Amino acid sequence: MSDTAKQPQQPAERPVPTSADVARLAGVSRATVSYVLNNTSAVRISEPTRVRVREAAEELGYVPHAAARSLRAGRTRIVLLPSGHIPVGPLYSRFLNELQGALRRLDYTVVQYGSLGLGADDAARAWAELRPVAVISLGETELTAQGVELLKRSGARAVVTLGPHRVEGAHSLLMDQREIGRCAVGHLLERSHRRIGVVVPSEPGLELFSTPRLAGARKAVAGTDAVVEPLELAYEEESAAALARRWRGLGLDAVFAYNDEYAMLLMRALQDAGVEIPGEVAVVGADNLLLGNLLRPRLTTVNIDMVAGRHLAELVDVAVRDPSAVGERRDLMGASLVKRESS
Amino acid sequence: MSDTAKQPQQPAERPVPTSADVARLAGVSRATVSYVLNNTSAVRISEPTRVRVREAAEELGYVPHAAARSLRAGRTRIVLLPSGHIPVGPLYSRFLNELQGALRRLDYTVVQYGSLGLGADDAARAWAELRPVAVISLGETELTAQGVELLKRSGARAVVTLGPHRVEGAHSLLMDQREIGRCAVGHLLERSHRRIGVVVPSEPGLELFSTPRLAGARKAVAGTDAVVEPLELAYEEESAAALARRWRGLGLDAVFAYNDEYAMLLMRALQDAGVEIPGEVAVVGADNLLLGNLLRPRLTTVNIDMVAGRHLAELVDVAVRDPSAVGERRDLMGASLVKRESS
Repeated sequence: MSDTAKQPQQPAERPVPTSADVARLAGVSRATVSYVLNNTSAVRISEPTRVRVREAAEELGYVPHAAARSLRAGRTRIVLLPSGHIPVGPLYSRFLNELQGALRRLDYTVVQYGSLGLGADDAARAWAELRPVAVISLGETELTAQGVELLKRSGARAVVTLGPHRVEGAHSLLMDQREIGRCAVGHLLERSHRRIGVVVPSEPGLELFSTPRLAGARKAVAGTDAVVEPLELAYEEESAAALARRWRGLGLDAVFAYNDEYAMLLMRALQDAGVEIPGEVAVVGADNLLLGNLLRPRLTTVNIDMVAGRHLAELVDVAVRDPSAVGERRDLMGASLVKRESS
Repeated sequence: MSDTAKQPQQPAERPVPTSADVARLAGVSRATVSYVLNNTSAVRISEPTRVRVREAAEELGYVPHAAARSLRAGRTRIVLLPSGHIPVGPLYSRFLNELQGALRRLDYTVVQYGSLGLGADDAARAWAELRPVAVISLGETELTAQGVELLKRSGARAVVTLGPHRVEGAHSLLMDQREIGRCAVGHLLERSHRRIGVVVPSEPGLELFSTPRLAGARKAVAGTDAVVEPLELAYEEESAAALARRWRGLGLDAVFAYNDEYAMLLMRALQDAGVEIPGEVAVVGADNLLLGNLLRPRLTTVNIDMVAGRHLAELVDVAVRDPSAVGERRDLMGASLVKRESS
């Protein structure tokens, strides 16, 4: 804190320039300022007047107010992406980045907006205040039919939900995390494993993914003589070492470790405890990260084919133009096993 | 695409309800609607009238328009966080999440807004249109003194830049990535290494970090008999294998591998090519990821002490309340070496 210095100059606070100030300086009406700065071609304004208005705006440092403009237009180009507080992995980050980039190229303004701690309907109300033309809900806040209705009444043309369930009134794009658990555990069953651990991360926020993955694992063993055992694990070496210490008492012959990062953590702890992989226990991750290929044995994983962000952006754009053109979709996520050495 | 079904019901488009509609239904003036829904206590309105207005708003599905409200208030509570298109690592993601959470708890609306492909001054103009009360620039778009001035003229009370350079008129919080390269290579010099490779990722967007890290490495060897050799590497096994194949021809005895992920990738490729670590070549990463501790040998790394998101949020809040209270700061990022087995 010793290296703190006051800023050399701090301008006295001046009022924010308005279009009225520009009009006064240019000697024209406010309407003329608006026509010139919004490039309206419907009204004839002489070039010298246009130049005068632009120079006055420049001199005063005036920029139009997006809020005012959206009020006049009645509808924004805002696509609201409720912003996450989930510690998402690299796969999901890349998807979000790609989605945002693609929406921007389609000339939408992507706004991420937090609704931490709000219930579903309060969140929908907060989002509606921004008058988005579309809302993409990624499942952190479960939208209700009422929330969707409210958003639509406030001008949203497309309310798109990605998640395991349909939401009435929304464009439901069904992405079912259960498929990942089913795929991993299905593979372990084929390889004759019968007592299968399923890692459930203890980090808050991940239930959104871990609960359906566990449910998918349970579904895979239903009707067989195999069992699934949930295993809580924090993303810390101590937690993994503790689980490894009591491992042999659990009598498990395989584990689906939630994702590749947890799998790498657990695999190392098991190896350090002298448990042989895959001889004594088979390990499967998910996400198909490059890093899983760097460990020895190489990590078997579930590859998740997520809809491309670009493709989802196009779906949103179609829905905004014609809300009836996009229906329920189930083809946006796939899971396939990548067999390597750890299983 | 076969699993596509039209939505069962698609309501005909109705106009977005306005406060005038609420006023008409409740049989009151628009001003009364505004007083009731904004909970203004300055005006006396009977409870039955309040109830009538709220019921009318409910029935019509009316929510106030945030843009309209910010126009009336003259100033928003928006903190603009220009949104990234950089493939950031987990450390930086966590910092951004924490910053956003902390700003929300301080009652700011955090809006992330993309400016992909815009020049610095055009980006500043686009940001100014949103009339943010504060802008936090994380260095992707280099703000100029003109951009800062424009934002301030549009009502921003705090323009905070995080990066290696001061920006005139802004609150400059200096975070110098060079320190990371200097720390890693300083350690290698102490261990008597003299021909030091520095990995430069070929993925676009990372120059923001890799260029100053390389500069810091060069600074560390200046005035010594050691040399620094930049090594381009893509985050792919093939690229790492190609580098490993020509490794012995390079005559290097150590490498600072940009960060832990690139270090893990390169270390595995070198091991697979029969290069011994640390015997033949010492490897240092950066970020102090948990995963680096899972490889054998355990990865030496640079731990980056980034300002806590919560702490930065408080600085922004202080600057919004009193712009003269926060000066230039240099104490917001530190680098320290974590010696493990790979060096």
